[in-house]
Amino acid sequence: MTRTVLESKTKTVVIGFDEPFCVIGERINPTGRKKLAAELEAGNFSTVEKDALEQVACGAMVLDVNAGVVYNSNPNPNETEPPLMTKMIEIVQGLVDVPLCIDSSVPGALEAGLAAAQGRPLLNSVTGEEDRLELVLPLVKKYNVPVVAISNDDTGISEDPDVRFEVAKKIVQRAADFGIPAHDIVVDPLVMPVGAMATAGRQVFALVQRLREELGVNTTCGASNISFGLPNRHGINAAFLPMAIGAGMTSAIMNPVRQVEMEAIRAANFLMNHDANGGEWIRFAKVLEAVEGGMSFAEASAAQSQAASGRRGGRRARG
Amino acid sequence: MTRTVLESKTKTVVIGFDEPFCVIGERINPTGRKKLAAELEAGNFSTVEKDALEQVACGAMVLDVNAGVVYNSNPNPNETEPPLMTKMIEIVQGLVDVPLCIDSSVPGALEAGLAAAQGRPLLNSVTGEEDRLELVLPLVKKYNVPVVAISNDDTGISEDPDVRFEVAKKIVQRAADFGIPAHDIVVDPLVMPVGAMATAGRQVFALVQRLREELGVNTTCGASNISFGLPNRHGINAAFLPMAIGAGMTSAIMNPVRQVEMEAIRAANFLMNHDANGGEWIRFAKVLEAVEGGMSFAEASAAQSQAASGRRGGRRARG
Repeated sequence: MTRTVLESKTKTVVIGFDEPFCVIGERINPTGRKKLAAELEAGNFSTVEKDALEQVACGAMVLDVNAGVVYNSNPNPNETEPPLMTKMIEIVQGLVDVPLCIDSSVPGALEAGLAAAQGRPLLNSVTGEEDRLELVLPLVKKYNVPVVAISNDDTGISEDPDVRFEVAKKIVQRAADFGIPAHDIVVDPLVMPVGAMATAGRQVFALVQRLREELGVNTTCGASNISFGLPNRHGINAAFLPMAIGAGMTSAIMNPVRQVEMEAIRAANFLMNHDANGGEWIRFAKVLEAVEGGMSFAEASAAQSQAASGRRGGRRARG
Repeated sequence: MTRTVLESKTKTVVIGFDEPFCVIGERINPTGRKKLAAELEAGNFSTVEKDALEQVACGAMVLDVNAGVVYNSNPNPNETEPPLMTKMIEIVQGLVDVPLCIDSSVPGALEAGLAAAQGRPLLNSVTGEEDRLELVLPLVKKYNVPVVAISNDDTGISEDPDVRFEVAKKIVQRAADFGIPAHDIVVDPLVMPVGAMATAGRQVFALVQRLREELGVNTTCGASNISFGLPNRHGINAAFLPMAIGAGMTSAIMNPVRQVEMEAIRAANFLMNHDANGGEWIRFAKVLEAVEGGMSFAEASAAQSQAASGRRGGRRARG
C-alpha cells in the first residue's frame, strides 16, 4: 500500500490508504491575511505562534508554512521570502512537534525551508509546468522529501479531468526519471467550485479513485474551494470531505480550527475503520460537549489535548 | 439506468442512480413510541397528521406508514393492523400528496395498505426468508408495485457482507420468477452499528456498489443504525449519508425532521450533480438562516415550503 512518510523532530505521520485522513493545517500563510502580512514585516510572530498551537490542538497532523508576504519595504520575494521562511519554521518547530509542509512558489524559499525543517517535511509544490519540474524535482531528490504535485501545466488548469489526470501522470513519470518514487508524490487533482461547475464533486471523486488505482499515489486538495461562492459553505465542505475520503482521498490542506469540517473528518475516519474502537470519536465528542457548554472549538480542543497529554504523562510516570 | 417509479395521487417520485437521494420519512410508526401507540388505539390521529405534514415540509419525498401497534384490548395484529393501516393511509393521503411506503410484517396489513394507497406505493418489505418470499412476492406482482428487500434469510442476519449480497441476489432471482423486474426491488443491505462492528461502514459502501453494479438494483437503509450506541450520533449519520450516497446508495428510511442529516443529504445531492444550479441548496440555506434566527427546523422548513408553493402558485397564475 502507498505510504508517504513525513517526520518532525520526533514524530512520524504517514499519509496512506490505510491511515486516518491527514489534516494539513493551512493557517500559517499571509496570502489574503493583511494583518498577518503586516505583523510578519514588523517581525511580530505572535499570530504564527497562536496559529501553530491552535491548529495542532484542533487536530492538524501537519502544518503548512507559507512565507509569501510582499513587504512594502522590499517587493522582491526572492530576497525576502527565504529568510522569513527560515524564521517561521524555527518558531513553529520551537512550539509544536509535527511535520511541516513547506509552501512557496519561490525556489529559494523552498530550499531555505528544507534546510531549516527537522525530520522529513512535505514540499509544496511542483506543477506540470516545465520550469517548475526542472526547479523543484532536483530539490525533492536532493533532500529526499515527498512533494505535493498540482495537476496544472503550462496550458493552465484544464476543466477536463482526463487532462488533469494526464498532467499528474506526467509529473509522476518525470519524478521517476529523477529517482523519486510514486509514494513520495501527493497529487492535488484540483477542486473546482461546485457552484460554478456542476460536475466538480463527481470529477474529484472519480479522479481520486483513478489516481489511486492507476498511479498508486496519495492525494490532497484545497478542500474549501468546492464551496466557493455558496451560502452555508461549511455544510458543503462537511459533505465533500467524507465523500472524498470514501473515494480514496488521503489528505487535505485546510483550516482545522473549524468544528464542522473536523467533525466530518473524524466521523469519516471512524466509518473507514481508521479509528480503532472509536477512541478518537469519543474524545472528539467530549470536545463538542465543551463547545456546547460555551467554549470555542479551539479552546475546547486545547483543553482536551492538554488533559490527554496529562493522562499520557501520568501513565508514563506510573509505568 | 435503474429507475424505481413511485406514485401518489398526482406525483411521481423516481428512486434512481441519476436522481436526488430519496428520503423516506420513518416517523409514522408506533414501534417504540408508546404515546403514539396509545393515541392510535384511542382513535386519535393528531400525531400522525403532524408527522405527515412536518416530514414532507422537511424534505421527505415518500412517507413510510406502519400500523404495527399492539392494542391492549386485542393483542392479535392480524385483526387490528389491517383496518388501522387503511385508516392511517386515508388520513395521510388526505393531507399530503407524496407516495407512500406500506410497512408491515402482517400480510393482511400489507394487502389492506395496497388496496387503500393511491398511485404506486412502495411495499416494505420482503426478506430472503422462505415464508416471506411466498407471501409477499405474489402481492408485489398482483399490485405491480416495487418492494424493499431486506438481506436476511431463515438463517438470520449474517455479519458477512458476501452472504448478505447472496441473500439479495436470491430475492432478485425469486422476484424474477414471479415476473417482477430488478428495477422494482430496492435492496436494504442492512447497516450494522459501527460502534459494535468496526467494518460496518466499509461493508455498506462496498455492498451498495456491488448491488448496483452486479444486480442493477436501487438501495435503501435504516441509516441511523450506523451510529447506534455512540455519542454525538448526528455527526456519524451526517458523514455516513454522503459517503453512502457517493458509493451509490439511492434512498434511506430515516427521520427527515433532523437538520444535520438533511443538510448532509442536500449537500451530497449538490456534489453528485443532482441539484441543478444548487437551487435546492440555496433554498435550504434560507431554512438554516431561519433556524439561526430562532425557529425550529420543522417550523423553518414549513415556512419555506409554504413560501415556495405560494411563489409557484403565483407563477402558474401569471403563466
